[in-house]
Amino acid sequence: MSEKVIQYLKENREALLKKLNDFLSIPSVSTDSTYKQDVEKAADFLVDYLEELNFEQVIKQKTSGHPLVYGEYNGAGPDAPTVLFYGHYDVQPVDPIEQWKSDPFQPEVRDGRLYARGSSDDKGQVFMHLAVFEAYLKTEGVLPVNIKVCIEGEEEIGSENLYEILQEQKEKFQADFAVISDSGMIAKNQPTILYGLKGFTGIEITVTGPDHDLHSGMYGGAARNPIMALSHILASMKNEDEVITVDGFYDDVEPLTQEERELIKKAPSEDFVESTGIPKTVSEKGYTPQEHTMGRPTFEVNGIYGGYQGEGTKTIIPTDATAKITCRLVPGQDPEKIQQLLEDHVYKHAPSGVTVEVKKEKLSSKAYKVAPDHPLIQKAAESYTKAFGKETVYVRMGGSIPVVEWIDAIYGMPIVLLGFGTPEDRLHSPNESFPLDSFDKGMETLVYYWRKVKEQ
Amino acid sequence: MSEKVIQYLKENREALLKKLNDFLSIPSVSTDSTYKQDVEKAADFLVDYLEELNFEQVIKQKTSGHPLVYGEYNGAGPDAPTVLFYGHYDVQPVDPIEQWKSDPFQPEVRDGRLYARGSSDDKGQVFMHLAVFEAYLKTEGVLPVNIKVCIEGEEEIGSENLYEILQEQKEKFQADFAVISDSGMIAKNQPTILYGLKGFTGIEITVTGPDHDLHSGMYGGAARNPIMALSHILASMKNEDEVITVDGFYDDVEPLTQEERELIKKAPSEDFVESTGIPKTVSEKGYTPQEHTMGRPTFEVNGIYGGYQGEGTKTIIPTDATAKITCRLVPGQDPEKIQQLLEDHVYKHAPSGVTVEVKKEKLSSKAYKVAPDHPLIQKAAESYTKAFGKETVYVRMGGSIPVVEWIDAIYGMPIVLLGFGTPEDRLHSPNESFPLDSFDKGMETLVYYWRKVKEQ
Repeated sequence: MSEKVIQYLKENREALLKKLNDFLSIPSVSTDSTYKQDVEKAADFLVDYLEELNFEQVIKQKTSGHPLVYGEYNGAGPDAPTVLFYGHYDVQPVDPIEQWKSDPFQPEVRDGRLYARGSSDDKGQVFMHLAVFEAYLKTEGVLPVNIKVCIEGEEEIGSENLYEILQEQKEKFQADFAVISDSGMIAKNQPTILYGLKGFTGIEITVTGPDHDLHSGMYGGAARNPIMALSHILASMKNEDEVITVDGFYDDVEPLTQEERELIKKAPSEDFVESTGIPKTVSEKGYTPQEHTMGRPTFEVNGIYGGYQGEGTKTIIPTDATAKITCRLVPGQDPEKIQQLLEDHVYKHAPSGVTVEVKKEKLSSKAYKVAPDHPLIQKAAESYTKAFGKETVYVRMGGSIPVVEWIDAIYGMPIVLLGFGTPEDRLHSPNESFPLDSFDKGMETLVYYWRKVKEQ
Repeated sequence: MSEKVIQYLKENREALLKKLNDFLSIPSVSTDSTYKQDVEKAADFLVDYLEELNFEQVIKQKTSGHPLVYGEYNGAGPDAPTVLFYGHYDVQPVDPIEQWKSDPFQPEVRDGRLYARGSSDDKGQVFMHLAVFEAYLKTEGVLPVNIKVCIEGEEEIGSENLYEILQEQKEKFQADFAVISDSGMIAKNQPTILYGLKGFTGIEITVTGPDHDLHSGMYGGAARNPIMALSHILASMKNEDEVITVDGFYDDVEPLTQEERELIKKAPSEDFVESTGIPKTVSEKGYTPQEHTMGRPTFEVNGIYGGYQGEGTKTIIPTDATAKITCRLVPGQDPEKIQQLLEDHVYKHAPSGVTVEVKKEKLSSKAYKVAPDHPLIQKAAESYTKAFGKETVYVRMGGSIPVVEWIDAIYGMPIVLLGFGTPEDRLHSPNESFPLDSFDKGMETLVYYWRKVKEQ
């Protein structure tokens, strides 16, 4: 009985892709205030789509930052489950822009992939849900489940306003369970249940020395170099075995059980060397790269700058140097505690002769895990397998979706992560793309899933 | 008998300062090709001035980079000594431009100082020599010495073409001794003989990991972070005691004798904390900041960059990271050997999982020392003392002037460094300036010096 719905998606594929392109063409970069109007436009696109679908209570809800789009569908009746669907319409910045092969905001199909910023993370996947709603409504006239749509515009900047909204309007967003499509499969066309996510925290370190750049000949030997001081601090935080050497960092880490390590071993693994171009993988001593990415905490310097960056040489001792650091956390670790440990470590290891300042990343989140044998998870696995024609595997992943932790903390409802991205999508990088295969089979999965969930 | 000449300088002070301002207003930034025409304009200014003074053989000599200005004066006759006067008319870049209190190329006098890029290094000091030539010629009709003027436009980018020119046209530049005013006094109004300079070498290190920026959640734990790898490399090159930990680095260093350490102790010392704003001085273990700046080699990271530098957070493992490093060397050290030791160290300490590339700074130079009791040096000390009314002190300095080493190597002629800058001049930094005191008394010193040298 889902054939008609799937048939609709096939027959209207071109029109749907065109509509998706319109959505992707809006440069909704949330971190850069230059794009504020574009972020609004992307929200308007969603409002229009939900109104076209005759959703109720459709609203572009103002926040102190970017708006949140809400709408609900109650046509499935009081006996059907109510689902909270969460997604985000904002995207990452595009720099370095010169590395893009096509304009990030002029979607282009090459070799079966749709290239555009946001094609995978997360506008593309949000759109698939709306298209499936459309297909159900245009063919059967009803959706199998009631839906509350919550699509925010601040995910890439830490979902600054979402937590407050979810907490203050608890009844409005209350549902039987939540569905999120903001993740990926472990390999293209490999149905994957994501049952765990990492938490997140971060700091920024600035080392300041002289109040102006100094001539290295006249002052070299009298003034501590801020870049060298920062290098010493960074090198003291993680060693060459990829072990984080911050006191207490691993204290509360929930250890990887032998069973989980075997489960990880069995899951098909991305060829990291192939997909990233690195000479070889490197992971925490005692753990495989798969174990480390899925189940062990990480510490990454995301950016560093200080002194002269131009052409040629400038013989200075620079006035300051800054490093941006974020950590991915595993179950057991408390983000605030970890952030405090990082800060304490930096101050404790600050060399003399310079001033060191730590800025704490405002928003951080706990890691999340759900039981892989939960019925809602099992139905998802069945839907995936039916659409993709392949057994579903179960994995944890290194990404962080703060909203997952918040929905868990505020509502305690089960959260099902239905991700359709692939490891080749280049999220957050130049040339982000999404396979059209995932677009088609992903929507098919959703068609099956809503039906199965209704039958529960 | 020098009174008339000095009187001329006093009476024409305003006109001379106006002319200097015209010279300083030309943004002759040699490292940035945007300013190529301005560098030419600065050379033209000098050519015009030398022609006004009726110098002979005046020429703007083309090079593969920026031109060299040459001119000679032979009016002192065959019995008078011939002096090679070297200077440079190019200047450092001005960034960070927002830290300048006035436009770097619109000279402004504040509190007895002339603020402009190049006011001290080296356009201001070059101009003083030309003004003194003018004063002699306008009053006495002759200069006490014969002069060969050699003013290059590439000092701030390593004097790329000068060495070849000096070597190829050896006869043209041959003289009895050389005079250079591209340095400073140890304190304002404290006559200072600079009898030693440091050598110079440098490398640039680039660490490359993935071929695109990676999502830190998906790949953290599988890929080595290039910024962290670079931090480990840098931290392995100098420890927190400011001791350079590169194998063999100190092997050929001419040790500081007890006598020299006492000489350094006696020389009035700049208050580094006051003049630079650092919390406290830091120097090589076992040496004072004065000993380290004057007589021990240094290792400075002049710039570092990698990954995200914008507002907010970008959770990536960046594709690469780069550090620019220069060293100041002391007598005994061979720049090429040191450069090789640095390169060897970096490759030896390169962590796995990343590619490390070392680029060697093309031009490097040996340190230089001259006997403080040489007659030409003694006459300089007497001229200083007469003009400034204060005993002259003898110091070595941490700066490097490659041309000093080259003139020494090619011609073996004595080199007298007549510097009039002060520690507060902020060379290579925002708000470079030069005290008008030094302008007046410096020119007076030169008037006495040419006379004394003639009397020899």
